[in-house]
This record gives sequence, C-alpha cells and structure tokens, in this order.
Amino acid sequence: MINETYKSMLGAKSVIRELSEYATKRGNEIGYENVFDFSLGNPSVEVPREFTDEMIRLLETEDTMTLHGYTPSLGNAMYKEAIAKSLNERFGMNYGPEHIFPTTGAAGAISHAVRAVTKPGDRVITFAPFFPEYRPYMEGAGLELLVVPADTSSFQINFDAFEDMLDESVMAVLVNTPNNPSGIAYSTATLERLSSILKEKSAKFGHTIFLLSDEPYREIVFEGADAPYVSKFYDNTLSCYSFSKSLSLPGERIGYVAVNPDCEGADVIVPMCGQISRGTGHNCPPSIIQQAVARVCGMTADLSVYETNMNIIYDTLTDLGFTVVKPGGTFYIMPRALEESSIEFCKKARDYDLIFVPADGFGAPGYFRMAYCIDTEKVERAMVRLRQFVQEVYR
Amino acid sequence: MINETYKSMLGAKSVIRELSEYATKRGNEIGYENVFDFSLGNPSVEVPREFTDEMIRLLETEDTMTLHGYTPSLGNAMYKEAIAKSLNERFGMNYGPEHIFPTTGAAGAISHAVRAVTKPGDRVITFAPFFPEYRPYMEGAGLELLVVPADTSSFQINFDAFEDMLDESVMAVLVNTPNNPSGIAYSTATLERLSSILKEKSAKFGHTIFLLSDEPYREIVFEGADAPYVSKFYDNTLSCYSFSKSLSLPGERIGYVAVNPDCEGADVIVPMCGQISRGTGHNCPPSIIQQAVARVCGMTADLSVYETNMNIIYDTLTDLGFTVVKPGGTFYIMPRALEESSIEFCKKARDYDLIFVPADGFGAPGYFRMAYCIDTEKVERAMVRLRQFVQEVYR
Repeated sequence: MINETYKSMLGAKSVIRELSEYATKRGNEIGYENVFDFSLGNPSVEVPREFTDEMIRLLETEDTMTLHGYTPSLGNAMYKEAIAKSLNERFGMNYGPEHIFPTTGAAGAISHAVRAVTKPGDRVITFAPFFPEYRPYMEGAGLELLVVPADTSSFQINFDAFEDMLDESVMAVLVNTPNNPSGIAYSTATLERLSSILKEKSAKFGHTIFLLSDEPYREIVFEGADAPYVSKFYDNTLSCYSFSKSLSLPGERIGYVAVNPDCEGADVIVPMCGQISRGTGHNCPPSIIQQAVARVCGMTADLSVYETNMNIIYDTLTDLGFTVVKPGGTFYIMPRALEESSIEFCKKARDYDLIFVPADGFGAPGYFRMAYCIDTEKVERAMVRLRQFVQEVYR
Repeated sequence: MINETYKSMLGAKSVIRELSEYATKRGNEIGYENVFDFSLGNPSVEVPREFTDEMIRLLETEDTMTLHGYTPSLGNAMYKEAIAKSLNERFGMNYGPEHIFPTTGAAGAISHAVRAVTKPGDRVITFAPFFPEYRPYMEGAGLELLVVPADTSSFQINFDAFEDMLDESVMAVLVNTPNNPSGIAYSTATLERLSSILKEKSAKFGHTIFLLSDEPYREIVFEGADAPYVSKFYDNTLSCYSFSKSLSLPGERIGYVAVNPDCEGADVIVPMCGQISRGTGHNCPPSIIQQAVARVCGMTADLSVYETNMNIIYDTLTDLGFTVVKPGGTFYIMPRALEESSIEFCKKARDYDLIFVPADGFGAPGYFRMAYCIDTEKVERAMVRLRQFVQEVYR
C-alpha cells in the first residue's frame, strides 16, 4: 500500500515555497524586477570561472571512463586530500583524507553524520532559530529533535534553557553557524561555553555527546565578525559542509563530512558513512564535480555582494526603528516584525510587493527573514519601498 | 555513541571488492594486462561524444547560476519530459513528466520507490540470483527481504517457490531484468505469468502488491533475446533506471523512477518521493548532468562489445562442457562451476590469473559470475587460459 506517512506530508506546503511561487506569479503580472523577493536562499553570484574552466578541461582531456566512472565508495582521493589540506591550512586542523566523507551537499552530510553517532530513538538538540529541514533530517533517522528557545537579545545560545534540556537521552547537538535564518555567527565565547558544557555533561552521563556543525555559510563572513571554526573548540565534532554557497553550486550536490581527528571513533566514522549510504540509496556525489571541486577547493565565488547588501538593509532597518541583530555572515537577516504577528506583518508587506518570510517556522515567532542574495540595485529600490510601507502602515 | 549497527557492518568485506583488490595487486606484479579480471561490473565503453559535447556547450554558453542552481525538488522539467517522451516512443507507454522522479542512479531509485509503497516491517520478495545490495537497500527502509530460490534450468522465475512464499505480508516484488548476475532477461511468458499471479494475489489479499523493476541493463540486450518492458505487463509497476550502463556514466549518479500512469497512487508517488528524500539526506541528481542527459536521452554508448564478448565466452564455455544459460543481455554470464563449491573453483582459477566471482552471495551457490566488460582482445586471451585451466585441473 502507498505509504501513508509520506502521503500525509504532501498536505503541508512549505511557507517559503508558497511565497516564492506567489512572487513568481506576481512577477508575471508586474514584471519580476518590480517584485522585491527576499524569500529564497539561492546564491546570486556567478560560479568562479576557474571551476567552469576546470570542468571543460576535464571533459576535453580526460578519459571518459575514468572521468565518469564509479568513484570509490568513500570518495575520490584527490577531493578528500584537497579538502583536508585546505581545512588544515585555514583552521590549523590536522585532518587526513581518511577523515573526509564526500556527500551530496550539507543535507547528505548531516544525514550521514547523525546516523553515525546515534541510534533510532535517541534525541538531538538544536538551537532556535534553526533551519526547518532539520526536522525531517532527524525524523528520517528515527531521532527526536529538541529545540532550545532562542536568546533573542543576541541570537547566540540560550545556555540556561540548553542546560535545562540537556539530559542523558541527548546523544548529539546540532549547530548552524553562521546561521540560517538569523545571519549570526557563534562567537569564540559562545563556542567555548558550549564546549565546556558538552565536556562536563559527557563525563557526567558517561557517554560522548557529539557536536554536529552545519556550516554551508562558513565562507560568507562579514568584516569584524567573530566566526571561528567550530571543530577547534570540541574534539567530538563532525563538520558538515556544502559548496552550494561558497562556489554557487547548489544544484550540483557537493559537500562533505569532516571528522575531527581526535573525535571518538575518528578511525571508523568515515567507513561507517559508506555503510550508511547503502541503506539510504547511495549518496556519492557526482564524479566529475568531485574532480573539478578538488582543483578549486579553497577558492570562492565573489561573495562581497552579500556584505554590501547586508549593510544597506541593516542601516535602513535600524533607521526605521526595527529591532535587529547585525548579521556576521550568510545572506540572511532576521528583524523583529513591527507587530506581534510576523505572519500579519509579512502579509501587509506583500501588498507593497515586499516578499518576506515569517520566521515562525524557524523557531523565532515575531521575527521575519530576508534573504538578500539578490542584486544590490534591487536591494536599494526595495529599501525605498520598505520605507514607504513602514511609514504608511506603522506610523 | 557510535552507532554499533553500522560499525559492525565494517567487518564484512565484499567478496567482489576483495577479488578486485587481489586483481590489482596481482596486476602490479605481472602487469594488469596479464590478469584476466572478470570481477567488476564497470562499463568499459566510452561515453557518447554527444554527451561530452553537450556538457561543454552548457558550460560555455549557459548562465552559471541557472546551470548549477538548485533544481526543483521533483527534478529538472526538461529531463523529466525527455525521459517520458523516450519511454513512450520506445515502449508504447503513456508517461507524463509528472510520473518521472530523477534519482541518484538505480540505488536511489529503488530506495525511493520501495519507501513509497511499503512501510517499515513489511516484506518484499526478490528472485535468486539477485544483486546483493538489495539487502541493505531493503533493510535501510526497515523491510524484510525474502528470496525465492533460483530456477536453475533457465534462470527465469521459480513460480512454484514464489507462490508458496507470497503471502499477505508481502507488499512489493523486486525484479531485475536483464539480470545481474545471470545475464538472463525475463521473457514475455515469464512476465505474463508474474503479472497474472500479482493480480490474483492482490485481489485475494485486498491490497496492491507493487512491482519494482530494477532495469539498469535495459539497453544492453542481445540479438534474438525476448526482453520486453516490464511495466507493460502490470500497471502497478515502478521502473527503476540508471544511465550508468547505457551512457557509461556510473560515477555521475543519474537515474529515475518511472511510475506507470495507471499505477495505484500514480498521482502522488512522485511528490511522495520528494518527501522521502528529505528524510534520507536529499537525493536530487546533479543539475548539469540532468540537463546534459535530457538532451542525449535515448542515445547509448556503443554497447556492441558486450555482445561480442558474450558470444566468445559462451562458445568457449559450452565447448569446455560447462553448464551455462546463454545471456539475453547485460555484461554478465553465470556458468555452473566444475566442482560443487564455486568458492573452491574460483580459488583454483585464480592460480591461472582468472578472476571469477563465486555466485553464492547472489543466491546461486555452485555458480560463478564473469563480468565481461573488458576488451575483446583480453577476453580472447582469457579463453586460452580458461581452456588450459580446465584441462589441467578438471580432466
């Protein structure tokens, strides 16, 4: 029989997708250039020319059977070496290729990492605001996701609530920094305190609490932000990465899990990921993309537009009296709505062709998310419209 | 804690992989051209030039953000349309793009398809000989796999054993034709009888028994073989395909599920697959590969070498007195060993640098598999060696 669980999921439409579809429809009416669509987190900068050149070179010169043949089940050796080397140089780590497991993006990375360090029935903690897809990722692995309420003053971690919630049923903690949707990066102080609590509680409970660090926005960090490498603070860390944002390659599904060499089970976690793949339908990222990324690893697309946009938006928001914490990275910002219901606020904004996403689904009711991965020229026009909206509706 | 289930899987080394590693090691000693390695099912023919040209054209002319951007979660529209059109023209089907779900190869296809039509705890039947990865695919979805013993006279279906095993706990049947490891294609008569049993038992049990058809070798069919399209015989069929073999692209992870338009739930199964992906770590195949394959869909690599090789091997085997059913397709053949234990037989063959795989793991003890996706010149030299081996050891 048709699986009723998956069938019932079809009813629940994604708020973001609905808003994005509305924006497209409205764009057909008035021209998409006149719709200020801040709904979707799609990279808006060109892929580096070096990646494209490398792809063409591979296609023109390599033997097709090697280029497109099966990669080893634990990944292409050159890809793994390039990543280990780049992480070691940039963050003073000590990864070998044996600590790198190539995955289909960060989604694949999180899904493998969490299965390696939990068993069905275990609990995992994350912190609001959080990426809503964490729920299906955890539920798909048979896990229960607990969400620590946000520290709305800074969008760092609400440690009191965390310590209340962290009991011995919790086997892993999942963080996302720089964060979608808040744009905030966890500071050195935050990561030190998080590490210290995890060490203390691991000892107390008699089992390791693993830290899963989801960091697809790691390379989009703004001037002056304190955004250190998570795994430096806590050995039992599995870093989950995607090149979707840093190289503007979201459709090519290329990322990895990097297991801290001092992590419990560091010698078996990558081979275990290979076994996990067999049960979920094989995960290996595409061969040619592994080979091309291996050669441009460490490079990024020109990400500066995101900071330019952020500054324009942040200045306008504060000028208009919004409560907002300045992002340290990503291409998101999450101001407080000008009325209690962010859903109502976003509905009213829509009348001005401003497409914002209520952050309720991210665990931050009363806030809304703006994804500013759009042209700066459009951001500037949007700020004029935002000013008009606020003045007409909320003054 | 480290997941003990996955950790314990690390002990069990794949027989095929061990043999392949032995062949590589032996090749380093005596030259790989002198090792007659029939262990691995890796395509051995060039990728069609049209695919490579299309990839280069996309890279040189398309906007990089569109080319490498997120595909819709249910797949690239052009890819889905091209597949539906090709299947309709070739097999007289009536697919629309809404019946096609792009997947990361056949592994991804089977994993999605089976989750859509079962729930954890259900049973699925397959037929020996069978691809051993079916076990982890099914176990990963929480299912029990039952294996019907082989009909060793023809390697079609042992229907008596099947009917004995098919009770109301069975929710799906998984077939693989043309078959790995036997090379046999299910005939029209086989598929008619299978369909008639599934219809009768579905009515009797009061629930649909779905047919999952794994067909990565569909395009490698030899002259005179009766190898019809499975879904034509039974409406409740989900066809699971990969371009790994037909286009020689195994590393690029590109395939699909095609849901028969008259299947129960045909309107919801593809969207359900989109939901299933969220719980397993997202499956979307790479964007550029979807776009390139869309334009060469229906084309194949030059697959004729496989038939040439098969004929040489089949003639030698029968001449040497082996019991063997002539393959209708694939690049496999599965003769009976010349002694009771195929493991012993393959060990002795190894002393002649003939690398064969015992078929015990495929559910056919006493038989061995030869993967003849290698150069014809090497096949010919291997036959001289095989003759010597048989004459010296078994005469």
